[in-house]
Amino acid sequence: MRCTDHPIVPGHEIVGVAEEVGMNINGIKVGDRLGVGTYVNSGRDCEFCEERLKIHCSKGAVFTFNGVDVDGSITKGGYFTFIVVHHRYCYRILENYPLESAAPLLCAGITVYRPMIHHKMSQLGKSLEVIGLGGLGHMAVKFGKAFGLNITVFSTSINKKEEAFSLLGADKFVVSSDKEEIKALAKSLDFIIGTASGNHLFDPYIEVLKMGGVLVLVGYPGELKLESFHLLRGMKTATSSASGGTKMTQ
Amino acid sequence: MRCTDHPIVPGHEIVGVAEEVGMNINGIKVGDRLGVGTYVNSGRDCEFCEERLKIHCSKGAVFTFNGVDVDGSITKGGYFTFIVVHHRYCYRILENYPLESAAPLLCAGITVYRPMIHHKMSQLGKSLEVIGLGGLGHMAVKFGKAFGLNITVFSTSINKKEEAFSLLGADKFVVSSDKEEIKALAKSLDFIIGTASGNHLFDPYIEVLKMGGVLVLVGYPGELKLESFHLLRGMKTATSSASGGTKMTQ
Repeated sequence: MRCTDHPIVPGHEIVGVAEEVGMNINGIKVGDRLGVGTYVNSGRDCEFCEERLKIHCSKGAVFTFNGVDVDGSITKGGYFTFIVVHHRYCYRILENYPLESAAPLLCAGITVYRPMIHHKMSQLGKSLEVIGLGGLGHMAVKFGKAFGLNITVFSTSINKKEEAFSLLGADKFVVSSDKEEIKALAKSLDFIIGTASGNHLFDPYIEVLKMGGVLVLVGYPGELKLESFHLLRGMKTATSSASGGTKMTQ
Repeated sequence: MRCTDHPIVPGHEIVGVAEEVGMNINGIKVGDRLGVGTYVNSGRDCEFCEERLKIHCSKGAVFTFNGVDVDGSITKGGYFTFIVVHHRYCYRILENYPLESAAPLLCAGITVYRPMIHHKMSQLGKSLEVIGLGGLGHMAVKFGKAFGLNITVFSTSINKKEEAFSLLGADKFVVSSDKEEIKALAKSLDFIIGTASGNHLFDPYIEVLKMGGVLVLVGYPGELKLESFHLLRGMKTATSSASGGTKMTQ
């Protein structure tokens, strides 16, 4: 697959056009528009590979960028101009769907989409808090709006406010350091997607969840530390998710 | 309800026989065998009361023991010889079902049963780790065996081993301080019910969970502190639960 024309998001995911196709490969032909997500190889014989959750392969999935493949080569991800990859790790991109729009779906998109579906966040009228407005946060807000959720964006920076409202259509914006405003939101939200990395407090976020509320960490915030009573009192959940399976990504 | 004959488990729950019944109360008559669980009152008009999850009443449920009722009286739970209680907080106990067996179901029983059902732990052949073998732990093992789960008991004391195997039918017993044995269990279990109170490490327990595994805290271990990567790597969940609703308790 040659991605010279479209090295749009250099890094973990790749979009481009199939230039050559191996023998006996059904469903892909030269000229097809394809994408490659966060991994380009896996053991292919464990339960997770069978369930198309290759990212959790027991032998370890090979990441698209800076991974070590079975032949010892280091993967270059979107920094290279072409990629030779097994068809199991390719996704078809619909005609007329912009490649530059498809690319983020293959990493940030699936990373937030999987837990949103798994934890039933696609319920019209429910409320979602998105912590952090980087790549993952953007995708979480966009999916949330598409599901009909009421979205509150939490960010450390007031500079993200305009973007949250005008570009992404968020319903509310809170600066994370504003303790009063966070307190006023107590027990009012159904779900949280936490995209922020680096150590931060979790108790204030757990407190804004309604009974049965779910906090999903998709960033890597280091140590998760919270008062267990905050989970107990409202039967709340803290969980995490990394990327997603090939079936759901497609 | 007079419980003079059966103050079997003094404390949070009560079992006994109805001595007088208020007017216009359907479904309960004098002589009926009844139980009262962990709460004897609630606001009765919030969403949680409507959903029979009165323990999470927004005005605060009144605990059966050492609670302050609307008239200012302090509740005495099973330490008293009788109780006057609204029928919404009474449970029918089947004829021939021993009252002493019903009593623990009304507190420890529902506390572990609710999250076991909610998190789909009743799947034949799945594996459950029970941390701690006190009142809650006993009930978790008994429900787990009834559901056909493979049960591993973790306890700080080797003295619980005989009880775990002979009395409760556990399949495996591990002393919590045995780091080697815990390490050998890595990624092997589906669910954990954590009944231990007091601060303890959580990372070793999260590590024994398979991908998608769930840790439910039903004790009160103070601060929950774990490496978020341990949740992320296997899409694992930490959650908590307190008692349960009247419908499920019944």
